[in-house]
Amino acid sequence: MKRAVVLLSGGLDSATTLAVSIREGFEAYALSFEYGQRHCIELQAARRVAESLGAREHRIANIDLRIFGGSALTGDIAVPKNRKSDGGSEIPITYVPARNTIFLSYALAWCEVLGAADIFIGANAIDYSGYPDCRPEFISAFERMANLATKAGVEGTRFTIHAPLLSMSKAEIIRKGLELGVDFSLTHSCYDPATDGVACGECDSCRLRLEGFRAAGLVDPIRYAGR
Amino acid sequence: MKRAVVLLSGGLDSATTLAVSIREGFEAYALSFEYGQRHCIELQAARRVAESLGAREHRIANIDLRIFGGSALTGDIAVPKNRKSDGGSEIPITYVPARNTIFLSYALAWCEVLGAADIFIGANAIDYSGYPDCRPEFISAFERMANLATKAGVEGTRFTIHAPLLSMSKAEIIRKGLELGVDFSLTHSCYDPATDGVACGECDSCRLRLEGFRAAGLVDPIRYAGR
Repeated sequence: MKRAVVLLSGGLDSATTLAVSIREGFEAYALSFEYGQRHCIELQAARRVAESLGAREHRIANIDLRIFGGSALTGDIAVPKNRKSDGGSEIPITYVPARNTIFLSYALAWCEVLGAADIFIGANAIDYSGYPDCRPEFISAFERMANLATKAGVEGTRFTIHAPLLSMSKAEIIRKGLELGVDFSLTHSCYDPATDGVACGECDSCRLRLEGFRAAGLVDPIRYAGR
Repeated sequence: MKRAVVLLSGGLDSATTLAVSIREGFEAYALSFEYGQRHCIELQAARRVAESLGAREHRIANIDLRIFGGSALTGDIAVPKNRKSDGGSEIPITYVPARNTIFLSYALAWCEVLGAADIFIGANAIDYSGYPDCRPEFISAFERMANLATKAGVEGTRFTIHAPLLSMSKAEIIRKGLELGVDFSLTHSCYDPATDGVACGECDSCRLRLEGFRAAGLVDPIRYAGR
């Protein structure tokens, strides 16, 4: 069975991506990060999702991205609420500098040790927050770099970065996830949850999620504050 | 003054690179990593070097690369001694999977927060251990990816990865460092030092260093076991 490393945040995109990787026949090695995110409760969701979907292994890398600051997700800056969508032209303050580059670099390291050539990431360039490191041109530039960076690459491995959700709408992702048996009640998306983990319903991530369920004609199974 | 992030291991290549960045007029932000390396004593050398050369700031990021294993530098595998040079055709067991990719990704993150567009790395493709992530084609692929990965890149910043030592011999690096005022007695290169920090003199890194000093007609100022 071919092995793949799957980046798993615990949100609905990465849960669906994990399900896709398994459906495609890969033995999935799920990788999450404790990076100083204020919504570190997502790691509990990642554990539940990895177990429920049958990942072969799940590791959480402890990496501190707070040492640089510069983001509402890791710093003292407040998470914006009920922000007007601007069609993705402005990059919001929840952007974490170079985060996907760092995450993919770790995935690459694990791939080399596992003898794997495939990395899955739930990046999405449609219903997303406008992050540059979710765009197709970034994904393919990383793939090219990965093949030059590694011992495995020199020895003939051709790494592939799979981003199966790249051009799907949030509603399509939700339908795809359900079709593949993802239990969305186990997932967590909110950037700014209450201490008991209840989603705020007002940050970009909650709003994209809620709009996605609405567009799919479905009800989001998780709880939201005040609803 | 333009800012640059400089990767600083505490060895002679990165010390010389830091000196080059300062000579080129950059305000240097030195970045080191505690990644579970068995020669973590190099971090003390990095502190001394950063201070002695006048880095504006020095940070040590704590990132655990042991979770994946796969290298003599982070795992239980022994560091090879008195290995015959094979002209760089074989990649040795001291290779740490995707290490420079991960280090450069962190440097990129710090650049974005600092508003910097320049990263310095002491990679060298001549007298080196045969690591794929020290080759010029890797450096330029990373640079291309960095410009697509980041908010700064989207907003017009053009990142440059400077690898000023890339095509220099070890002897040339040593002469360049001395010319720029690097005190090599402060540096540490050994992969497998004694607990008091004394270099083994037999690992690849010690041997490249000793051969470099010899070729430059100079005496290495650090202590070696049994000499």
